[in-house]
Amino acid sequence: MKFELTKEFLEQLQAQIQNQKSTDIFQLLSELHAADLADILQNLETDDAKYVHDLLPEEVTAEALMEMDDEARESLLKLFSPEEIAEQINILDTDDAADLLGELSEEDKDEVIAKIEDPEHAADVEELLKFDEDTAGGLMQTEYIQASIDWPVNRCVVELRKQAEDVQKVYTVYVVNEADELVGYLSLKRLLFAAPNTLIKDLYQHKNFKFVKTYDSSEDVAGMMEKYDLVSIPVVDRQNKLVGRITIDDVVDVIMEEAEKDFQLASGISENVEPSSNVFKSTRSRLPWILIGLAGGVLSSQIIKVYEYEIEINPALAFFIPLIVATAGNIGVQSSAIVVQGLASKDFQFGSIVKQIGKEAMVGIVVGVICSLIIFGFNFMIGGDMNLGLTLGISLFIVVVMAAVLGAWIPLVLDKLKIDPALATGPFITTSNDILGLTIYFIVAYFVYSA
Amino acid sequence: MKFELTKEFLEQLQAQIQNQKSTDIFQLLSELHAADLADILQNLETDDAKYVHDLLPEEVTAEALMEMDDEARESLLKLFSPEEIAEQINILDTDDAADLLGELSEEDKDEVIAKIEDPEHAADVEELLKFDEDTAGGLMQTEYIQASIDWPVNRCVVELRKQAEDVQKVYTVYVVNEADELVGYLSLKRLLFAAPNTLIKDLYQHKNFKFVKTYDSSEDVAGMMEKYDLVSIPVVDRQNKLVGRITIDDVVDVIMEEAEKDFQLASGISENVEPSSNVFKSTRSRLPWILIGLAGGVLSSQIIKVYEYEIEINPALAFFIPLIVATAGNIGVQSSAIVVQGLASKDFQFGSIVKQIGKEAMVGIVVGVICSLIIFGFNFMIGGDMNLGLTLGISLFIVVVMAAVLGAWIPLVLDKLKIDPALATGPFITTSNDILGLTIYFIVAYFVYSA
Repeated sequence: MKFELTKEFLEQLQAQIQNQKSTDIFQLLSELHAADLADILQNLETDDAKYVHDLLPEEVTAEALMEMDDEARESLLKLFSPEEIAEQINILDTDDAADLLGELSEEDKDEVIAKIEDPEHAADVEELLKFDEDTAGGLMQTEYIQASIDWPVNRCVVELRKQAEDVQKVYTVYVVNEADELVGYLSLKRLLFAAPNTLIKDLYQHKNFKFVKTYDSSEDVAGMMEKYDLVSIPVVDRQNKLVGRITIDDVVDVIMEEAEKDFQLASGISENVEPSSNVFKSTRSRLPWILIGLAGGVLSSQIIKVYEYEIEINPALAFFIPLIVATAGNIGVQSSAIVVQGLASKDFQFGSIVKQIGKEAMVGIVVGVICSLIIFGFNFMIGGDMNLGLTLGISLFIVVVMAAVLGAWIPLVLDKLKIDPALATGPFITTSNDILGLTIYFIVAYFVYSA
Repeated sequence: MKFELTKEFLEQLQAQIQNQKSTDIFQLLSELHAADLADILQNLETDDAKYVHDLLPEEVTAEALMEMDDEARESLLKLFSPEEIAEQINILDTDDAADLLGELSEEDKDEVIAKIEDPEHAADVEELLKFDEDTAGGLMQTEYIQASIDWPVNRCVVELRKQAEDVQKVYTVYVVNEADELVGYLSLKRLLFAAPNTLIKDLYQHKNFKFVKTYDSSEDVAGMMEKYDLVSIPVVDRQNKLVGRITIDDVVDVIMEEAEKDFQLASGISENVEPSSNVFKSTRSRLPWILIGLAGGVLSSQIIKVYEYEIEINPALAFFIPLIVATAGNIGVQSSAIVVQGLASKDFQFGSIVKQIGKEAMVGIVVGVICSLIIFGFNFMIGGDMNLGLTLGISLFIVVVMAAVLGAWIPLVLDKLKIDPALATGPFITTSNDILGLTIYFIVAYFVYSA
């Protein structure tokens, strides 16, 4: 029952496509889960994927389309006529339908919307398109189940049966009052075991009931569902009217994308790239930070130039430039990573920022002492001169402490300025710490050697 | 209905604790969600948290305990007697109970287990303790709902009502045959709308039915639930007998911890630290990579030393050491980040590894040409000598291309060796690229200047 895409499977399929064995292909693929089909489609040439797609029932292919990588879907969709896209949208849940429509150009959107069969579905999808994709409104679907607080259980079951036709996965019934305002929820479990004439009023749950507003950010929605262990959450508009629901599978995607984005930012990649992205996009996403790093390197060269005379007399000073900049960078990246993660999990609620910087300074002092002693000892051991040992020991200590503090402080400042603090880890910290480290190193050298 | 923990709220609570106003505290906190209570408890002094804890009903505090940070929970639990811990375990779901027990010392475990009131619950929890915490067995709970394939719907509802008392959240009924083997599932929705005398045999679902084995890794479980958009998944033993289920909330925690761990590894932090970790633990988690970086720095110094003579004649060569090492590091980190993410999302299934390294080389060539021209131009502009410009331009190009390839290649090798490739990003790549970059730089310098 576990499907695993193998090279052999793909080769078999490719041969069948080559020979247009449509019945064989149908048999091979029609029972698969949409997510597995998506895997297969994005590993085929686009033309082949379209051929396979057209052979299979739309209920499966529409969902498979939504499970594909953005770039693979984009190229496949280029082979679709507006009618074909409209058919897919007609089948998809409103949230996926809106996402799919959102990927089209403005003209294509109009043409496709005009061709959607079910006018109510089309209207719902168009309504969802108005929301920013990074908000609860952008995540929600209009497929949900609602019950009126005045109904008895037996009427509720009858009404729900009608509604449930459109809703794939039902976990919870949302309860509304006469004014259509959301007042609570009812778990299917509770409904299943209730006596038929019980009133919803006496059965529904509202203690610690959680919902979100259409304009809440998707990060907030994810945080809330994660914190309260929810599998779905209702969405209300500004008048507290129920307008949609968000299910946990979409939020898991948000959480994973967010983590991926942070990881990329911290690695100096400025837009979402995947291994499948082309060379141009890949270069574009990487060049900004490389150029900033280059500028930092040029600035560093000018700082060192000031101490040209010292280097001429003591070339050994130059030997340890990489050691100083690397250590400054490493310590800074560590500090900022801890603070960035703390910010993400809201660990600094109550003025513990000052405490955190104090602690980073403490860690910096401990690590600094250890590094200084090691390098001083190393220099002594290889018979380096005393001045060099002192310069290395003293500057390394100062650099480590300052880099630790700066590394903690920069993301906190960025966060205050409403800039994503994940920017701080990686190249930004390394570049600024390089410059800081070199400056300290050569100032210390100047004083030690002239003492 | 949205609770937000504020400074004022905390201060009010602290004053009430000071004055032992137990009724006020009960009123303030007893209606809160366990997750919010956990937030409050971990922001109080441990003694105060214990005081508050003892005032509140166990149903809430037991769950709140499990929602706290590991370290805050650990210190709070030190104030608990074995009887008190056994009471909490008696209330908790088996998966949480096993996690809690797992945190105790071996002696404490025995003492606590002996004091658990419900012997069946105790046996279930002890059974779960046998599984590795990073496997499906370690994640699962024994609270689930099962139906026999031979039952009619009405009998099923009666039986489920009995079972459901112990199960907080019910999404799906698992269907077993006479031999207790798992054969499929039944959604509550389907059960709710079915005629009373329908047989489960004719109603249950098994197409694309997903389950996991107790020994599957938690990463595989998370990948599966994410891929197939599941809210719960059943767990079977080696004989295909149903033994537990895993719910999505626990898997969301796995996903987030995994992302956090990758981010920390990539930032050179070798064990899980939180901002609240103490200075000792924080230092210990950071020192390994700092020392490796230091060793790299020492090695770099010996490489540069070989070229002491060149630097004495041309001190300007030393100016650009930081530029070379920084660029090599930045490019390498970017390449490895893309590959690490690709590996995590299984993008390199079909021999596309060679392709990926080829693409990184292409990106390296483009970025390398741009960087080389800029730096050559800069040197020309500020009137630097031609040899320096040539050295910089040529070596920067080679360094960028090689760093890009190495950055992509190292995580692929680590992955083949079954080492977490996230190790590759961050300090490991930076350190090796520093050494590579310097070597190339000075070799090029040697040839250019002696030409």
